[in-house]
Amino acid sequence: MKNAFYAQSGGVTAVINASACGVIETARKHSNTIGTVYAGKNGIIGALTENLIDTSKESSADIKALKHTPSGGFGSCRYKMKSLETNKAEYERLIEVFKAHNIGYFFYNGGGDSADTCLKVSQLSESMGYPIQAIHIPKTVDNDLPITDNSPGFGSVAKYIAVSTMEASFDVASMAATSTKIFVLEVMGRHAGWIASAGGLVDDSIPVVILFPEVGFDEKKFLAKVDKNVKEFGYCTIVVSEGAKWPDGRFLSEQNTHDDFGHAQLGGVAPIIAKLIKNALGYKYHWAVADYLQRAARHLASKSDVKQAYALGQAAINMALEGKNSVMPTIIRTSNNPYTWKIGSGKLKDIANIEKMMLMNYISNDGFGITEACREYLQPLIEGEDYPPYKNGLPDYVVMKKLMVDKKLPPFGV
Amino acid sequence: MKNAFYAQSGGVTAVINASACGVIETARKHSNTIGTVYAGKNGIIGALTENLIDTSKESSADIKALKHTPSGGFGSCRYKMKSLETNKAEYERLIEVFKAHNIGYFFYNGGGDSADTCLKVSQLSESMGYPIQAIHIPKTVDNDLPITDNSPGFGSVAKYIAVSTMEASFDVASMAATSTKIFVLEVMGRHAGWIASAGGLVDDSIPVVILFPEVGFDEKKFLAKVDKNVKEFGYCTIVVSEGAKWPDGRFLSEQNTHDDFGHAQLGGVAPIIAKLIKNALGYKYHWAVADYLQRAARHLASKSDVKQAYALGQAAINMALEGKNSVMPTIIRTSNNPYTWKIGSGKLKDIANIEKMMLMNYISNDGFGITEACREYLQPLIEGEDYPPYKNGLPDYVVMKKLMVDKKLPPFGV
Repeated sequence: MKNAFYAQSGGVTAVINASACGVIETARKHSNTIGTVYAGKNGIIGALTENLIDTSKESSADIKALKHTPSGGFGSCRYKMKSLETNKAEYERLIEVFKAHNIGYFFYNGGGDSADTCLKVSQLSESMGYPIQAIHIPKTVDNDLPITDNSPGFGSVAKYIAVSTMEASFDVASMAATSTKIFVLEVMGRHAGWIASAGGLVDDSIPVVILFPEVGFDEKKFLAKVDKNVKEFGYCTIVVSEGAKWPDGRFLSEQNTHDDFGHAQLGGVAPIIAKLIKNALGYKYHWAVADYLQRAARHLASKSDVKQAYALGQAAINMALEGKNSVMPTIIRTSNNPYTWKIGSGKLKDIANIEKMMLMNYISNDGFGITEACREYLQPLIEGEDYPPYKNGLPDYVVMKKLMVDKKLPPFGV
Repeated sequence: MKNAFYAQSGGVTAVINASACGVIETARKHSNTIGTVYAGKNGIIGALTENLIDTSKESSADIKALKHTPSGGFGSCRYKMKSLETNKAEYERLIEVFKAHNIGYFFYNGGGDSADTCLKVSQLSESMGYPIQAIHIPKTVDNDLPITDNSPGFGSVAKYIAVSTMEASFDVASMAATSTKIFVLEVMGRHAGWIASAGGLVDDSIPVVILFPEVGFDEKKFLAKVDKNVKEFGYCTIVVSEGAKWPDGRFLSEQNTHDDFGHAQLGGVAPIIAKLIKNALGYKYHWAVADYLQRAARHLASKSDVKQAYALGQAAINMALEGKNSVMPTIIRTSNNPYTWKIGSGKLKDIANIEKMMLMNYISNDGFGITEACREYLQPLIEGEDYPPYKNGLPDYVVMKKLMVDKKLPPFGV
């Protein structure tokens, strides 16, 4: 019997804890094969610093409550392990920690960058003679992991954006005759316009113009489209991705700071677009920047997203029990109408460092909307509601006790 | 038997349509006394331009659906009628329109500015010999109408802000150890910090610093508080009102534009606060601007807010049937634990142009939080959920047919 290590990685979502719940609840059902699940405190750096949370100390009620709690119950980080050749010491440390705590399973719950780390860890059996099975559990609001039809976290943020776009449009429509005619909603999405595309799910009677990162910003064409909508509908809603770019590749709004994965910190393109419209067309505007609200909105999670996030955590344990290594459970869409799906599998070497972009046939000809094919893809991902329980008017989210395992090793700096 | 005129005024909310539903459904139950309810298209300018929506043409199912639909089903505007002396022609026009359509009841659903217009209309019987009963129905996310314990629209936006503050805090807490430590949420509230106060409803384990419009911004004290929170909790969430001011009264962020009521257009203080913290303390930040999302969020409306909004619309009709004039139905809080309330009444002369500010004993000593008294006041206003029905993953909001009554009069410019 071996213990397991589980860690959350990268930006958290409304449903990553549902995956954690799937992992831990399923492991508990196989307690004769999988021992304790240790969660890395704040992610993989928890493994490196030997800060391991003993999840067996969390009550079953609390573990169950993870399913309806957003964000990272055990903490997360953006820590991309370098190659074995470049930083052997880190891998030797990982193995030391795994050995000291009898860890034979490594479950890493994150996006593209963590798939790379998971792949490296999966190679340790071969490269360094340490028997560890490494399995990646998909997670990303950006929906850009390859092979899997969609990634957990995305369906809920898509639902949030679609609902927000609809509600804000109802608002601006109310007073457009005499007042505000323009509403701009800024959404996440550094390179892929998946999240922005959700703005296109509203009814046709709502004029939405989407600014995708994939489509170089054509100011003239954009203003003409906005103006046409205002003249026809009385107002216009714009959904702009934080990753919207000029044709030369520059982001419309770069804040000149970067995160630890080297990604530029974006944000603030909504007021830029709003003012651009005001200056050119004279229309009064309002704008909103959703930021973390869109990916932490467990109060509005998509039911299928929650189910899939849980199922993928569960599947990861099952794959481990089958002896698999260097794989990631995936979602395979088996039909659209009705929407059905099943769990599949992908190899990490085919997943790591590969970004799945929006399909070009998902973006309308003029570049400002989604096609019927895109709608068909997106629609099932936002269907169904999975409300958390409430207490005193607020969602009853759980906070893990996070009791730490006693350390056995000397410290290690990261 | 007389017909009724109903209009929505000012910024719309998640529950103003619930009031409209209360008005129309209750009027329909008294069809031997109140004839047709005509809704002003886009508010009171609908009366002046004789653009009257015949609400009798809306099905009972659609009128019922107003209860779960946000924003202004009949359109709204910010049109403050001048005094009778200054602009007699407008009042003469109103009376012409009322006469032509046999209107004897005037229901005006708005905030402080519209209470003033409603008061003026209520004086027309006396001043111009036209028998009209004018009743104001409270509405405002700012919660600043006097006499009534709270105003419809506020409870839902408070719930939205409290939930959003909680969820965003869970998000930033997840990666604070190695990444973002500061989250700033900008909320509405030009002069009163009622909406910002809702950020204080989260559990004590979440460090929230509130910037109220009532408290002149003390940069040094603020930064010290934020820094203390980061050192103690690992991160800090800031809820800043769009109306936050320097001690000399200047708004922290004024966009140099004004609305038709002469109010400065605000927005954009979140990035200012975030960068201020980064420059002084070096912490990585994220920020969100909720804007219309907070007041259009019917998907997360407070159950008591919906109930009260409906009840006040209903009460307005009842007051009209009792022959009242120049009044506004109000909410009287009869107990806190359990929360009970009843409908009261206030005179428009005591309401118009009077802004109810936050009680000073609702703001904590250091100026950055709420007191227990405030929490006791706010808590019941956010309790209970009243989810709208969903269809294809989105709320099933109704759009009124808005069939217009035939005009009888010549045009009138506004």
